Amino acid sequence: MRLLDACARKPVDATPVWLMRQAGRYLPEYRAIREKMSFVEMCRRPDVAAEVTLQPLRRFELDAAIVFADILLPLEPMGIGFHFSKDDGPVIERPIRRARDLEGVHSIDAASDLQYVMDTIKLVRHELDATIPLIGFSGAPFTLASYIVEGGHSRNYAHVKKMMYEDPVTFGRLMSVISEVVVDYLKAQIAAGAQVVQLFDSWVGWLGPFDYELLVLPHVRYVIDHVKGLGAPVIYFGNGASAMLDLVGKAGADVYGVDWRIELDRAWDQLGDVAVQGNLDPITLLGPPKAIEERVADVVRRAGGRPGHIFNLGHGLIPQVPPDNVKYLVDAVHRLSAAPI
Amino acid sequence: MRLLDACARKPVDATPVWLMRQAGRYLPEYRAIREKMSFVEMCRRPDVAAEVTLQPLRRFELDAAIVFADILLPLEPMGIGFHFSKDDGPVIERPIRRARDLEGVHSIDAASDLQYVMDTIKLVRHELDATIPLIGFSGAPFTLASYIVEGGHSRNYAHVKKMMYEDPVTFGRLMSVISEVVVDYLKAQIAAGAQVVQLFDSWVGWLGPFDYELLVLPHVRYVIDHVKGLGAPVIYFGNGASAMLDLVGKAGADVYGVDWRIELDRAWDQLGDVAVQGNLDPITLLGPPKAIEERVADVVRRAGGRPGHIFNLGHGLIPQVPPDNVKYLVDAVHRLSAAPI
Repeated sequence: MRLLDACARKPVDATPVWLMRQAGRYLPEYRAIREKMSFVEMCRRPDVAAEVTLQPLRRFELDAAIVFADILLPLEPMGIGFHFSKDDGPVIERPIRRARDLEGVHSIDAASDLQYVMDTIKLVRHELDATIPLIGFSGAPFTLASYIVEGGHSRNYAHVKKMMYEDPVTFGRLMSVISEVVVDYLKAQIAAGAQVVQLFDSWVGWLGPFDYELLVLPHVRYVIDHVKGLGAPVIYFGNGASAMLDLVGKAGADVYGVDWRIELDRAWDQLGDVAVQGNLDPITLLGPPKAIEERVADVVRRAGGRPGHIFNLGHGLIPQVPPDNVKYLVDAVHRLSAAPI
Repeated sequence: MRLLDACARKPVDATPVWLMRQAGRYLPEYRAIREKMSFVEMCRRPDVAAEVTLQPLRRFELDAAIVFADILLPLEPMGIGFHFSKDDGPVIERPIRRARDLEGVHSIDAASDLQYVMDTIKLVRHELDATIPLIGFSGAPFTLASYIVEGGHSRNYAHVKKMMYEDPVTFGRLMSVISEVVVDYLKAQIAAGAQVVQLFDSWVGWLGPFDYELLVLPHVRYVIDHVKGLGAPVIYFGNGASAMLDLVGKAGADVYGVDWRIELDRAWDQLGDVAVQGNLDPITLLGPPKAIEERVADVVRRAGGRPGHIFNLGHGLIPQVPPDNVKYLVDAVHRLSAAPI
């Protein structure tokens, strides 16, 4: 399997490719289901979540599936209620800002509390071609903390940073509880059949290196230390963190996801002897084939045939992308990377 | 003057410090004026704009003033109408998305078309202590183009990137017109008395290096080539671009502004023999003095006494910042940088 080989930095016949948010609103068959039920309901129904997971695999020659779920799902069993507003933005019902807000927040037993995710994984693993690996995932501790403290999306992460500066002890306790949850959740996904797991640190790039190293990186390391060696390679993706890869690279992951803000060869040189995933600007997929081709070729050229490259976007696919462009991209990755250099 | 000496990389007695958006809503004396008139009206009345420019200088030992203005002001004389919505977001009335939308968009004569900015500069220069330099500024070509094409703030810059991919010729024409406007505007500000000018590329960090180098950097170079050597050092600030400083550093500026996403010493090593401005996370100012002190000390330590450091935030001050914390910051920069290392 190309993806697993690349994670282990073994040679492959062509660069494996999957795309963050490859199951999503850009597909009409996804929208047809979404019209009938809410996003969270889709996540909670294993039959639906499995179907949506498989949809992009039927259209494109993708080298992996990723279980359809939302990074906020573990919050509910932790005792932190949330819902999605009309415009699909997450809303945390009681944001945590002070020590006493942490009362009642607790660890989980993911295998039972989030059984529907495990059932989805089992269903997908049953239906998916045995040659295609399935990726499980979780939000990383800071990214989950930022939602929990900010109360939803944020422009500047003022609440969570204020907590880091004013009350690092409470922030640390919150990060520790989240880290335990993430470890348990990823272990349960691996036990259910996930062959690779990705830790999404979507908002960590809004931190400076000083705060990241002091207050966040130790928790990322803790999570990865406890999940590694269970048979599923760990991918750590720090979005917006490409100017501090010297620190990100200390997380202990098998594979590092890289956003589109850096040249892939420069990123890889900083990360060293690891596999690297990335890093096309997702908005490229709004362009014509010629523009996609040029930019895919640039990424492939910068990977330079080194073993251990997994092609991906530098962030998630957006709903406006034409499916034909995704097909063009996936085929271009295989064609350009398989060609003799 | 500390700031001008630092721009020329001469030794100083203490590191000069000014803060992006140092004139603004965090000051009660600013809000008192803002209650009486709109933001744009404040920019257009030289007496008011000059007063607001000077307000932070009365409270803090800042080493520079920066003229109070908005980066969108040149749009109106270019033939591109805009206003601010109730929540202070800019709204471009007729976004430019295709070649024919460019009809009627033209260069300007900044000295007359934006005379109120020049009058503000003259007023400030008249009232300000002669030992404190005054900074003029403009938005950089891509940042202005992104507003003009997106129609306001953007989450993912999909419209402007789509134009770059689908119709690079029209995008290039738009960038050329903007570049001429920016050159003329900065020259007029220097002629009116600005002693330093800063080019704000606030949104350039949402581009990948491939697109930046191909489609944006040549225009930045054009602007700086035509403004340099007029007696005012040029600062180029690319927000979010800290993972591509190898390219940003080719812009030809005297000073490079650096956001807070990178360690200052690493940034400086990449930029080479230039002056460097930055780079404290602006949200640090919501923390207690201890947190501010630690993070200022880290930046000063990383500057390492090299001549040519100008202390600043890595992005603008936010309205929630307590003015006492700004005083603490400014004094800490001087105290920590003046101390023997």
